Amino acid sequence: MNPDILKERQKATFDVEKLTNILDGGAEKTTRRREIESMVLSDPDFKEEDPNFLSRSERYDQAIRKSAQMILKLREYGIADPEEIYCYKSMVGGNHIEAVGLHFVMFLPTLYSQCDPQQSKKWLPLAESFQAVGTYAQTEMGHGTHLRGLETTATYDPATQEFVMNSPTVSSIKWWPGGLGKTSNHAIVLAQLYTQGKCHGLHAFIVNIRDMSTHQPLPGVVVGDIGPKFGFNEVDNGFLKLENVRIPRENMLMKYAKVEPDGTYVKPPSAKLTYGTMVFVRSMIVRESARALSKACTIAIRYSAVRHQSEMRPGEPEPQIIDYQTQQYKLFPLLAMAYAFSSVGQYMYQTYHRITGDINQGDFSELPELHALSAGLKAFTTWETNAAIEVCRMSCGGHGYSRSSALPDIYVSFTPTCTYEGENTVMMLQTARYLVKSYRQAKEGQQLSGIVSYLNEADHRRVQPQPVAARPTVVDINDLASLVEIYKLRAATLVELAAKSIQQELQRRKSQEDAWNNSAIDLVRASDAHCHYVVVKLFTDKLGEIGDTAIHSVLSTLALLYALNGITKNSGDFLQAGLINVPQVLQISVRIKELLSQLRPNAVALVDAFDIHDKKLNSVLGRYDGNVYENMFEWARRSPLNSTEVHESFQKYLKPLRSKL
Amino acid sequence: MNPDILKERQKATFDVEKLTNILDGGAEKTTRRREIESMVLSDPDFKEEDPNFLSRSERYDQAIRKSAQMILKLREYGIADPEEIYCYKSMVGGNHIEAVGLHFVMFLPTLYSQCDPQQSKKWLPLAESFQAVGTYAQTEMGHGTHLRGLETTATYDPATQEFVMNSPTVSSIKWWPGGLGKTSNHAIVLAQLYTQGKCHGLHAFIVNIRDMSTHQPLPGVVVGDIGPKFGFNEVDNGFLKLENVRIPRENMLMKYAKVEPDGTYVKPPSAKLTYGTMVFVRSMIVRESARALSKACTIAIRYSAVRHQSEMRPGEPEPQIIDYQTQQYKLFPLLAMAYAFSSVGQYMYQTYHRITGDINQGDFSELPELHALSAGLKAFTTWETNAAIEVCRMSCGGHGYSRSSALPDIYVSFTPTCTYEGENTVMMLQTARYLVKSYRQAKEGQQLSGIVSYLNEADHRRVQPQPVAARPTVVDINDLASLVEIYKLRAATLVELAAKSIQQELQRRKSQEDAWNNSAIDLVRASDAHCHYVVVKLFTDKLGEIGDTAIHSVLSTLALLYALNGITKNSGDFLQAGLINVPQVLQISVRIKELLSQLRPNAVALVDAFDIHDKKLNSVLGRYDGNVYENMFEWARRSPLNSTEVHESFQKYLKPLRSKL
Repeated sequence: MNPDILKERQKATFDVEKLTNILDGGAEKTTRRREIESMVLSDPDFKEEDPNFLSRSERYDQAIRKSAQMILKLREYGIADPEEIYCYKSMVGGNHIEAVGLHFVMFLPTLYSQCDPQQSKKWLPLAESFQAVGTYAQTEMGHGTHLRGLETTATYDPATQEFVMNSPTVSSIKWWPGGLGKTSNHAIVLAQLYTQGKCHGLHAFIVNIRDMSTHQPLPGVVVGDIGPKFGFNEVDNGFLKLENVRIPRENMLMKYAKVEPDGTYVKPPSAKLTYGTMVFVRSMIVRESARALSKACTIAIRYSAVRHQSEMRPGEPEPQIIDYQTQQYKLFPLLAMAYAFSSVGQYMYQTYHRITGDINQGDFSELPELHALSAGLKAFTTWETNAAIEVCRMSCGGHGYSRSSALPDIYVSFTPTCTYEGENTVMMLQTARYLVKSYRQAKEGQQLSGIVSYLNEADHRRVQPQPVAARPTVVDINDLASLVEIYKLRAATLVELAAKSIQQELQRRKSQEDAWNNSAIDLVRASDAHCHYVVVKLFTDKLGEIGDTAIHSVLSTLALLYALNGITKNSGDFLQAGLINVPQVLQISVRIKELLSQLRPNAVALVDAFDIHDKKLNSVLGRYDGNVYENMFEWARRSPLNSTEVHESFQKYLKPLRSKL
Repeated sequence: MNPDILKERQKATFDVEKLTNILDGGAEKTTRRREIESMVLSDPDFKEEDPNFLSRSERYDQAIRKSAQMILKLREYGIADPEEIYCYKSMVGGNHIEAVGLHFVMFLPTLYSQCDPQQSKKWLPLAESFQAVGTYAQTEMGHGTHLRGLETTATYDPATQEFVMNSPTVSSIKWWPGGLGKTSNHAIVLAQLYTQGKCHGLHAFIVNIRDMSTHQPLPGVVVGDIGPKFGFNEVDNGFLKLENVRIPRENMLMKYAKVEPDGTYVKPPSAKLTYGTMVFVRSMIVRESARALSKACTIAIRYSAVRHQSEMRPGEPEPQIIDYQTQQYKLFPLLAMAYAFSSVGQYMYQTYHRITGDINQGDFSELPELHALSAGLKAFTTWETNAAIEVCRMSCGGHGYSRSSALPDIYVSFTPTCTYEGENTVMMLQTARYLVKSYRQAKEGQQLSGIVSYLNEADHRRVQPQPVAARPTVVDINDLASLVEIYKLRAATLVELAAKSIQQELQRRKSQEDAWNNSAIDLVRASDAHCHYVVVKLFTDKLGEIGDTAIHSVLSTLALLYALNGITKNSGDFLQAGLINVPQVLQISVRIKELLSQLRPNAVALVDAFDIHDKKLNSVLGRYDGNVYENMFEWARRSPLNSTEVHESFQKYLKPLRSKL
């Protein structure tokens, strides 16, 4: 053990194990998680080469091998609980993505939820036995977010009782689905359904794309890998071009909508049912944000405790870089954010399950709010985390740029969350739509409930173009409840500002749509402030559940740092709305410095509490034992470029060059 | 040509070619640049595979081949002007890094500047004929920024008149130098010089590391590649461990300091001379920021003009995504920033050359200011650009994540500028040191000149913890000169705030060093504000040079957007210092929206004016002709994973899996 990091651990003022239990949701959950992790750890079948040392094809190959192993092991060990499967998978995957993920995450669930009884009987055994390996082909080259714009067609031919599947344009080629390029022999294809000369919009079709025995693409199917990406290079995100591919009528998923043998279209009873999946996925992404950020903080903070650099006081040894105020200011607010997002992740998970229970009993009342909240929080937490990972990486200096740090892998694996499952700006605007609607309802005298109930009070607070000092400010910057209050008022102010912008545009005779677009900057800002408020609130609420005094104390410090740092970064908003005054801004700066010092002795313990196993972290800089340099050397020597002492390019290019000069 | 992008070009209100000339520094420079670029373009020897399709070893191999070709061609064509070489190289390199760059950028220049006459006679012919391929080995695993901490030793042995070179610890292993791993047979090694029992600090030594004929590492030399990185994977950044490697006394670079045959150490006359190189490199990085940002903006804005998505008004066709206000708000301020940084880059380049002239005539008076400015601006522009590239990438939705967009390559090639040649936070603190020193001088009654002369006025402006409204505000938000003024006052305010923080710490009996560290957050903030002011000022100054009315108009709009957007993003600072008031913040928001609309018709023309050739941009999304989708499909089909229809993993893992389930 590196002596610096040992010393850090001795300085902790709280019981790390207890905090780990809180993060896991109970001591028994921690125990079970570690049991599952150790199954993977001790399993020689999961021994692997660092994917960073492999070619794209080797990476894919290794990922498929691991996925196949994993499927067998999960059955062998009888692991069936989704949380436990998740835990097992993320231990196998480390910072990389599972190659056949979409078979489990999208193909099978779609079959479960959208097959009619006959279809279930046919397809489930095929898919569960991996005869049919599948993916979900929705996104096209020309369309992502806007589903109605998808161009792939499924035209019913009553003569043969088949659908004829086509990609009528280049932009209609299916693009991005994971596992589509090389792995899958089936795809659920989203296509515009045409029958009896009419388009009935998007429906899902099972298309057999590769021969189930030879795996060769079937006639009319042009399928392949979309090429290298920023990350996700284990995954064969694919393209699919369909040229008059005929599938039997029974391959349209018919639990809800149907096409009769004669071509008659039968409408689905309700469209509300797909709603829930999106909410679930987005809620899970919030949790992923917390996890990715926890990883990045673990690496950067442990490394900062081990790395010594420069001279702070002449003649003294080089200090640990974590002792520089600038380093603390980079990392501790992100550590606080990681804890904040963990609380939010837990909340979203619990709320989703609570509301799902309600929905199953026919009560949809809370779904719109959860839908709006999950959209905004997905955007808010992924954007924040995305930037934060890079701050962590750069805080490690040059070594952060090495793949051995794992930070590049964490970043490139995480950053797509800002785009997929709803592009972030679009998500913010969805939340804004809910906020503006709620604001208007409140204005019209309706009493709002739930998390937007603060808009009821909007009447009392307005954006007033008047001297800030004219408004009495009562906020206590050391009191979390008081800070939650001003975050709330900031959100209320900005929602009102956005709503008024729309109003003004309408008064200038702009259409609803143009008024909306011309206010989009304000709308995103309002959503952002709303989400920020929710995060501060949920983190603060979480403190109420903590019984342990020492842990309560350190988490309160984190929460205060999170809240005050957010005010500093957005001080214009708070000043503008008269929620704080100028002396307070200065007091907050001073207070933040104090909080950094206060957190300093607990910094390593706070990342230890995330309890991310070295194998999962896969970072030389973030090792638990702090033995960075020896292991960095070790890792580098394994680099494939070192497999020979003299690279062939020397004889080919460098030596001949001499004689030519 | 894509019809949308054609239409965009027709809407431009200015002559694109004329703006290109301004950016190049004159029409004849544009012509010559294009001549050089077309030499590369038309040269079949530079035909290459997209590095993204290659393994690490193949990438390195291809890069070495290209470098060797380039050396020959540059001689063949007699291209010797550094600017022209730069231009040729960046056309060959595209978004990737040259493999043997350090031979030219560091090895040869160090030989030129630090060899004594005898050494020059021996080494220059060897290095110029590529017998000796070299690199510059300074950074160690344990030390980057803090050079004095380097641990490698060179101990003089008078018995044999040799230096004995050693890496005494793991952390002393040389780490990161480009070209060190596989390419170089020599390295200039920075080491602590010991002679006659005394350490004389860092000196440079030429160490032969590989046999000049076989290229095998020499005895005592452990050398290799440090492994895969976020980017720079063409380059063999290397490690070097020296185990009692003996080199002749004459291999110490002796132009300044010397060791006599008996071991007597002779001090160098002055240490000031290495100063200039750092300033030069940092100034060049500012230019690189402008270039990288120009590339990213070109890609994102052209793609935004071609991409259609969603429905803005019911029933109408999907709009170009550049018509969404949120998209404009993401990209146009960055476009403005690219133009701002171009002005700053030109200024730094010119100033460096002017001051170099002065220095050659013995006048060092302006060097400290330029040193401070180049440090801060290097940090400011690289941080801003770094974040901006990612905003551009994400503004392209999913396709930005594909390597075909080039945005991942641009990012990973650019992001190290935040760390190398002086870690950014350290750079900001260097600038802050100069600012605080200047502030104190002004306080003591000295009259400051140059860019910090605004600190002379600091007496009149203080951070006053009093109602903002109490101060009269006279800023005209439509007048650039007025905005430059408030940026200046903001900087003055924050420099004063930082200086006072130090003062307060000292009053609390903290040591100078602790007072500095405890004020580091404020110091970085002050530097940042100073740099921001300089950028706004230089951009505004640039407008004065523009004769063409149409170009003057569009650049003024960009400058106004840059300035106002900076105020919005930092409105807290401006409100706090009483430089703007609350109604103005709201007016600025409205004004920014107007500016976005105003820029909309010129957006594509403004990126066209950067005149970045498709071959250099290497982006499917950013193609000049806008034909994105066809070419994306084309590119994907060339992906190595598509070289076979059925990947071997199917037979190895997927098919066997079925029988086991």
